[in-house]
Amino acid sequence: MSDWREKVKKVVPYIPGEQPQIKNIIKLNTNENPYPPSPKVFEVLESADASAFRKYPDPDSKELVGALSEVYGVDEKRIFVGVGSDDVLGMAFQTFFNSDLPVLFPDITYSFYDVWCDLYGIKYDIKPLNPDFTINPEDYKGENGGVVIANPNAPTSLAMGIDKIEEIIKANSDSVVIIDEAYVDFGGESALPLLDKYENLLIVRTFSKSRSLAGMRIGFAFGSEEMISYLNAVKNSYNSYTMNMLSIKCGKAALLDREYFKNTVETIIATRDKYAEVLKGMGFEMPKSSSNFYFAKHKTVDAGIIFEELKKRNIFVRHWNKPVIKDYLRITVGTDKEMEALCSALSEILKEQA
Amino acid sequence: MSDWREKVKKVVPYIPGEQPQIKNIIKLNTNENPYPPSPKVFEVLESADASAFRKYPDPDSKELVGALSEVYGVDEKRIFVGVGSDDVLGMAFQTFFNSDLPVLFPDITYSFYDVWCDLYGIKYDIKPLNPDFTINPEDYKGENGGVVIANPNAPTSLAMGIDKIEEIIKANSDSVVIIDEAYVDFGGESALPLLDKYENLLIVRTFSKSRSLAGMRIGFAFGSEEMISYLNAVKNSYNSYTMNMLSIKCGKAALLDREYFKNTVETIIATRDKYAEVLKGMGFEMPKSSSNFYFAKHKTVDAGIIFEELKKRNIFVRHWNKPVIKDYLRITVGTDKEMEALCSALSEILKEQA
Repeated sequence: MSDWREKVKKVVPYIPGEQPQIKNIIKLNTNENPYPPSPKVFEVLESADASAFRKYPDPDSKELVGALSEVYGVDEKRIFVGVGSDDVLGMAFQTFFNSDLPVLFPDITYSFYDVWCDLYGIKYDIKPLNPDFTINPEDYKGENGGVVIANPNAPTSLAMGIDKIEEIIKANSDSVVIIDEAYVDFGGESALPLLDKYENLLIVRTFSKSRSLAGMRIGFAFGSEEMISYLNAVKNSYNSYTMNMLSIKCGKAALLDREYFKNTVETIIATRDKYAEVLKGMGFEMPKSSSNFYFAKHKTVDAGIIFEELKKRNIFVRHWNKPVIKDYLRITVGTDKEMEALCSALSEILKEQA
Repeated sequence: MSDWREKVKKVVPYIPGEQPQIKNIIKLNTNENPYPPSPKVFEVLESADASAFRKYPDPDSKELVGALSEVYGVDEKRIFVGVGSDDVLGMAFQTFFNSDLPVLFPDITYSFYDVWCDLYGIKYDIKPLNPDFTINPEDYKGENGGVVIANPNAPTSLAMGIDKIEEIIKANSDSVVIIDEAYVDFGGESALPLLDKYENLLIVRTFSKSRSLAGMRIGFAFGSEEMISYLNAVKNSYNSYTMNMLSIKCGKAALLDREYFKNTVETIIATRDKYAEVLKGMGFEMPKSSSNFYFAKHKTVDAGIIFEELKKRNIFVRHWNKPVIKDYLRITVGTDKEMEALCSALSEILKEQA
């Protein structure tokens, strides 16, 4: 007998990083910003009027798109916004990767790319990184259904130069190339200057890292006017009102406070570079980070053990039990105080494990 | 030569209802609630701390799901939440309608159903309504890939009894039957009592109408634990964090203020029934509404003319230039004051057109 279950799309659920609900933990496991959003975001909350919530939000999020246009100097028709960069990327995979050819991305990269491919039945071909974790542009020049590169890449923390990014985009005029710039504000080189030159380029960004708004879910993309129109058509065929009223306003406020943004990012970079040296002094090896996290391996002590020992001390970092990266920890850059606490816990653990 | 455009999913964009940005309009075109959300929602805003926004929200929206469980007496594992009921419905179409058989729904109903089918390549077979706009359960008993019924239906405003709903669910044990209850709080009979009896039933609801939170984008669904697990797997394969921090909190607050909810809904129903008589007195014909809107046709004056004339007077209602319903206007029930203004404008227009 037939059953409703036969008509169900069954996917292996993606398990997001831990969001422990315990108080007083040091949370360095999801690459969140250790600083609050701009004071202008607090002002938005203070002046917000809940009466307005009875109405639908602006389906075009014009206020937010307008602010993005102003800050990045990109025409409004070339900007797409969504519920975090995951929504933007998921929508882009669905919109632009429709062929029988495989989509290409590195084997070590953001772990959602293959999940979206599985969800939408998109073929993919993963390309190994070089032994030093860099990406080889040559791997992305063959026939393909699309290319996705995270730059800087995660969890490796490594940035790729714009010259190599351009090589990849140029070699793929018959595919859309998505550059996922979630971490670019912490030291990567953006592909933004290439936007006018290549109509197959889509740049995806987020408010969750450098703008301290992970909780309000805001992502965006820059592309050619034609590409953005295809994305909006798919979005409007799914849900006209994805962006809620307060996210639109908070996003705008955070964007327009350029000074606060600059200061926060600079502080995180300074902390990152300072404690990179401290960690190296403790026997950690790591590539030079262009992001707000380290990708670190200890010379002698097993990453899994360090991960568990840190957890016992209420310090959360990220560890994957995957072949190429199982010796590494991904550690978010926190405040100086948090990094001090991390280093003191690490020195205790390393002593115990010696 | 090959082109990136060949790999693009091209869909005809859905055009959402007008959201005019002019002040001092009477907006009766998108079935929004004329009253603000519960005072408890205002309190959430007042006490919210923007510092928290730097972190990701709870991917499981436990606070909101817990409140839904408490208020509706449904186990948390049987509840799904999303970015408005459009997100919930879109996700459900994607999850449950995977077969070569057509999905069935009425020809006159929520206009997004065929849009989702087109987006996901789902076949569908639309069933005409009876001449009195009621739905004939017999039409939904043949072999199919799924069934979707809006109850009360839009834009007809008519509710179907739970006995007929049960007939449809019972006849379709091999398909998922979605009952879209966006308007049920205004007088429909919910399928909720059937939830324990049928594992192929999914009930979808929204905070956008009866709970005055359209701007915060909250929808939800009740189903069997197994169905909800499939929905969550698809959701988590798309975007772990769909619900932002404030929507979770506002939704919870609105839910728990049962008194305010009851009063608001009763007030809207009273206004609806009062002005239904006034409109009938002016020559309008309409089925008995079980929703927060009228589906009204004037005996002599063309609906398109009334629509345009109202618009000139800054009163917005909805009109579709579609065969079966082109003689009808969909008019949201506003406050008594708004209905007074509507009626006085209508009487002016009808006099002019007589």
